[in-house]
Amino acid sequence: MEVEPKKLFGNRIRELRKAKGISQEALAHLAGIDRGYMGHIERGNRNVTIEKIYQLAHALKVSPRDFF
Amino acid sequence: MEVEPKKLFGNRIRELRKAKGISQEALAHLAGIDRGYMGHIERGNRNVTIEKIYQLAHALKVSPRDFF
Repeated sequence: MEVEPKKLFGNRIRELRKAKGISQEALAHLAGIDRGYMGHIERGNRNVTIEKIYQLAHALKVSPRDFF
Repeated sequence: MEVEPKKLFGNRIRELRKAKGISQEALAHLAGIDRGYMGHIERGNRNVTIEKIYQLAHALKVSPRDFF
């Protein structure tokens, strides 16, 4: 596996968040995720779980499919 | 959220595995996942992580997108 899954995912979240024009803090709030944790997710430092994937998709109003 | 993400994911893994005609044990081996853990995943009892999602996708020769 070339680029690490966590990094791929983090980059994708950041990309979608920016496309929606919302701040990392706002996304964290919408998704019910701690702000600091949100930063780690985007930097690819967290091995995010299915449930958080659905929380983030719900907050960004996208399908979880769009993260991959 | 209607059906629990873990259950949705587990059902989808089972569906794709059966479509490929491989056993749960064979998938566990291919994905480098403990066999018992694999059973829990399919029953929707485990909050699977990004890295395991990529391992399972790699083993089933599908994109992680196909799990959602």
